[in-house]
Amino acid sequence: MKKKIGVVLSGCGVRDGSEIHEAVLALLAIDRNNGEAICMAPNEDYPETNHLTMQETGGKRNALVEAARIARGNIRDIKEVKAAEIDALVFPGGYGAAKNLCNFAEKGAAATIQPDVARLLKEMAAAKKPILAICIAPALIAATLGKEYAPELTIGNDAGTASAINQTGSRHVDCPVTEFVIDRKNKIVSTPAYMLAGNISDTATGIEKAVKAVIDLI
Amino acid sequence: MKKKIGVVLSGCGVRDGSEIHEAVLALLAIDRNNGEAICMAPNEDYPETNHLTMQETGGKRNALVEAARIARGNIRDIKEVKAAEIDALVFPGGYGAAKNLCNFAEKGAAATIQPDVARLLKEMAAAKKPILAICIAPALIAATLGKEYAPELTIGNDAGTASAINQTGSRHVDCPVTEFVIDRKNKIVSTPAYMLAGNISDTATGIEKAVKAVIDLI
Repeated sequence: MKKKIGVVLSGCGVRDGSEIHEAVLALLAIDRNNGEAICMAPNEDYPETNHLTMQETGGKRNALVEAARIARGNIRDIKEVKAAEIDALVFPGGYGAAKNLCNFAEKGAAATIQPDVARLLKEMAAAKKPILAICIAPALIAATLGKEYAPELTIGNDAGTASAINQTGSRHVDCPVTEFVIDRKNKIVSTPAYMLAGNISDTATGIEKAVKAVIDLI
Repeated sequence: MKKKIGVVLSGCGVRDGSEIHEAVLALLAIDRNNGEAICMAPNEDYPETNHLTMQETGGKRNALVEAARIARGNIRDIKEVKAAEIDALVFPGGYGAAKNLCNFAEKGAAATIQPDVARLLKEMAAAKKPILAICIAPALIAATLGKEYAPELTIGNDAGTASAINQTGSRHVDCPVTEFVIDRKNKIVSTPAYMLAGNISDTATGIEKAVKAVIDLI
């Protein structure tokens, strides 16, 4: 039977939701490793960014409705998803991971977490089920699980972000874009993707390796 | 020097723009084959579909602004792009290819083509530069170039669409999802992708082969 891999999206676009390349490359790697992706997102509205001008518009978009574009309509409200239903959980990056799923982008180590995301992450950690965080998403994992589990993870090599991650009780480890960091004790895998990548191929290479690693941990 | 590969997007989402998986997988295959993607889209507004309910909202979104999400902001108005600047041209699928870039979805073989798309396609054909059409996008190629060039192409095996394609003067050839059709005389490559695919892996396999084939034609 296929392993069920939750994929937590936060919208559709690098500046106000999930980074689209990272999300699609994760879905491809899950399928190629004989996993079944269970896409989900919060049913909440978040500020919208125009991706041509890269300016906030003043409007809002619903993360579940927009993430449904990446999921081709096959998506669930994260509120309804329990850790018991899935074998692993994957977080693509994009600013949405740091400003919709939590407010790390604004608050750093003092971030608060979207309640359904926090609940599901804590369920996964308590059940010792593997978690993969891509790009900036490890900051979300650090802010949620840092104090209790002290996970080891990477966002690449950005000193400011690494320092904020260390302040959560987690431990940041530098990592090149085509590799990943694995915390075997906590079953947490992370890869830098577009935190470091200058092209989509390097992003894909890191995500392919990291998805295989997280599925191997199941 | 890297080959410059134009990628024509029509929005961001399978029901009202570019199919996101196909677009990202094409960008990945271009980069992995040492190409440089030049993303472009029409600067025009088209009807918006909610991808959670799959219903039209009554609102509109701008194809260039939305496609910028897939292109991570690195995108041009197709009006400004000339065939002389690029070595090949790629069209991902999604309904946007059949209802924004032209109105094939409504008019079939009698479709009219968005003027900048028609101009660029005719420039490419006249210059004997290769074209790749994915999913439903071959219908756009057929409606634009069918009468003059009688290209051979595929959208998989949908009889109704194949018949409408044949009515343009083009010739439809059935093709499985993980393969592609190549018209060497006209340098036109096509692959069925989500016209047939039941999963993202099969879509990726067909697109990887087709992108390599089109770059080899340069």
